[in-house]
Amino acid sequence: MPRTKSTKKKKTPKDEKEEISEESKAVIAKIKETAQFILNGFVKDKPVIEVPIRGKSNIDYNRDAGIIEIDDDGRVSERIFNNLRHAKKFMQYILVMNYCNKLLSTNRTSDIRDLYYSLKRSIPGSREKTFDDQGESNPIIEDIEVSMDTLRERLHISADPKGYIVGNVVFEQTLKDRDYEINCNEVGTGWGIPSNVESDRVRITSLDAKYLLAIESAGMYNRLVEEAFHEENDCILVALKGQASRGTRRLIRRISGEKDLPVYVFVDGDPWGLYIFSVLRFGSISLSYISDKIASPSAKFVGMTMTDIKEYGLEESTHPLNKVDMKRIDDLMNLPWFQRDDWQKELKLMKKLGVRIEQQALASKSLDFVATDYLPDKIKNRKFLS
Amino acid sequence: MPRTKSTKKKKTPKDEKEEISEESKAVIAKIKETAQFILNGFVKDKPVIEVPIRGKSNIDYNRDAGIIEIDDDGRVSERIFNNLRHAKKFMQYILVMNYCNKLLSTNRTSDIRDLYYSLKRSIPGSREKTFDDQGESNPIIEDIEVSMDTLRERLHISADPKGYIVGNVVFEQTLKDRDYEINCNEVGTGWGIPSNVESDRVRITSLDAKYLLAIESAGMYNRLVEEAFHEENDCILVALKGQASRGTRRLIRRISGEKDLPVYVFVDGDPWGLYIFSVLRFGSISLSYISDKIASPSAKFVGMTMTDIKEYGLEESTHPLNKVDMKRIDDLMNLPWFQRDDWQKELKLMKKLGVRIEQQALASKSLDFVATDYLPDKIKNRKFLS
Repeated sequence: MPRTKSTKKKKTPKDEKEEISEESKAVIAKIKETAQFILNGFVKDKPVIEVPIRGKSNIDYNRDAGIIEIDDDGRVSERIFNNLRHAKKFMQYILVMNYCNKLLSTNRTSDIRDLYYSLKRSIPGSREKTFDDQGESNPIIEDIEVSMDTLRERLHISADPKGYIVGNVVFEQTLKDRDYEINCNEVGTGWGIPSNVESDRVRITSLDAKYLLAIESAGMYNRLVEEAFHEENDCILVALKGQASRGTRRLIRRISGEKDLPVYVFVDGDPWGLYIFSVLRFGSISLSYISDKIASPSAKFVGMTMTDIKEYGLEESTHPLNKVDMKRIDDLMNLPWFQRDDWQKELKLMKKLGVRIEQQALASKSLDFVATDYLPDKIKNRKFLS
Repeated sequence: MPRTKSTKKKKTPKDEKEEISEESKAVIAKIKETAQFILNGFVKDKPVIEVPIRGKSNIDYNRDAGIIEIDDDGRVSERIFNNLRHAKKFMQYILVMNYCNKLLSTNRTSDIRDLYYSLKRSIPGSREKTFDDQGESNPIIEDIEVSMDTLRERLHISADPKGYIVGNVVFEQTLKDRDYEINCNEVGTGWGIPSNVESDRVRITSLDAKYLLAIESAGMYNRLVEEAFHEENDCILVALKGQASRGTRRLIRRISGEKDLPVYVFVDGDPWGLYIFSVLRFGSISLSYISDKIASPSAKFVGMTMTDIKEYGLEESTHPLNKVDMKRIDDLMNLPWFQRDDWQKELKLMKKLGVRIEQQALASKSLDFVATDYLPDKIKNRKFLS
């Protein structure tokens, strides 16, 4: 097992300007390109911003890539400067783009709330505000993500962080003018997964593991960490804490993609657990325009399944599904990316039994049963839904 | 600045039995004492469990200690074995106590969901279950906490983890049979605060800082970490992520108590932010029976305040309060521990202005304003609500 010492290098402030990463320079170039396009519009007297249309109506399941995508028929929505109904959105787009340019140029990051407050002001000589509320600035960030085919994190805008990671992987993290080396084997119960894990901020320095196990609940994650499951089984453990954050999804994608590491997902046996898995694997409807960057199409579902109940004698630990759960099962069965024999069978059985089975129900056998029996059996014998 | 290397010592399994901490041994002794008391009841033919009454009706603000407490008039509620209405709770108490004893003896921890599943089963020869749902097992844990005057974490039962910490403090964390040394100066965006920070699990090895700053939102925490505020100002930063978790409250209490470190709290300027602060400082109504272990009565409120709006020119960044907010202000004004001139004045002004001001509104000045101007001014000139 390779060991590294934690180190921290402080760069001197005067280096700061030169420290803008290659990644950031590429994004700045894209921003300039877009700005030039808009400027050309002014010269031709028809200033316009083009944003690819995204929405439930035009998402599609790409069977070959195994992810949800925007149906790429090239349809764009136009924001025309000379149109009274478009003028405000046009201005907002420019304001946000300029803000991102400043963030990148000063090597800073910011979240969507900071962005809103930074840009909100009264427009002199009018009763209008640049943004009435954050509900106006959030979609503009998405517009820019889609039209520049990038991630907000690459524009140095981040979402709320959530989730933990532990195991034999070393990251190098850059914060403005400092670098940190984080060995996830030496952080006890785990490193907090940051909101921005793009390569100019977080790099995977070394990794020595057989697979990554993503776990729905913090309780189950803590159980496995305490049982030293990651050490006994040479794997990386990630706590999702419910639906995974953008940062966690992106980090899992990078680890599985860059290091070709198998990803197994361990969630509750109910429609909500299945959906958490599907978002990790296929992407989500609302973020379909970035599935290629945050979905992990090779991810496998390790449990809990309806057949586990009988196989592991968990009959006394189930709970009945309610009406909302039942409705959710029907919804999932109709999604294009759930049209797989294994999935349909699982959902049908769930409906028939009318129960859910949680990860932590395995504690009814014994506290370490999940670590000594359940997961090793599932993973060794490749009992996955696929 | 002292530097330590991260280390991990794996103890050999055969040591495991001897590795039960002094802390755990003391709790086991308490459990045995309670068991002996109950057993004596059987001998005298009146087996009974005594639980101090806790509830909204008998909580009290202890002005001298500066915390919320159970009004200690010695009233207890009895669970009588020979009473048909009490018999189930009596049994449940014994089951949970026995479960905790097993956890402590095997040096394991578990959460409240694990506990529920571990103990839920059908009672042979009846249609009764030991626990119908988790709503039955949770209050029993509280019963045991109160009657043994301890924390569930000391019984090795933990809550969900939440929150991050960064700065010049080194912890030693014990997980079953392993020890980790975690230097919070070398973890980039931060260490995930674990659910159990009792001294048999987490010890403060060294600390070199002038104060601890607890921050409501992850966004503001990330801002300050990126600006290296903790390095420039020799302080520890903690992200609460909304209402602080039990683990975070306990850790702040331990740092402020054991290391005599000042604690400053930085939250949104609205009734919810004030309440987050009050819970850190005075304790909460629902956990009044453990305020002496998780409240930090020396904590100071650094912002946001209503007077900040004018002083720092944030008029354009306020948002109107709604009816629920207004009602909440009235509720707070009536709480015994809010009867302080500063507080009443602040709440009255909030009501009069009818607005809230968020931490991140400071971004409207500039992204680094909070780090270079606002916080240094507030802290250096001790502009606190007290």
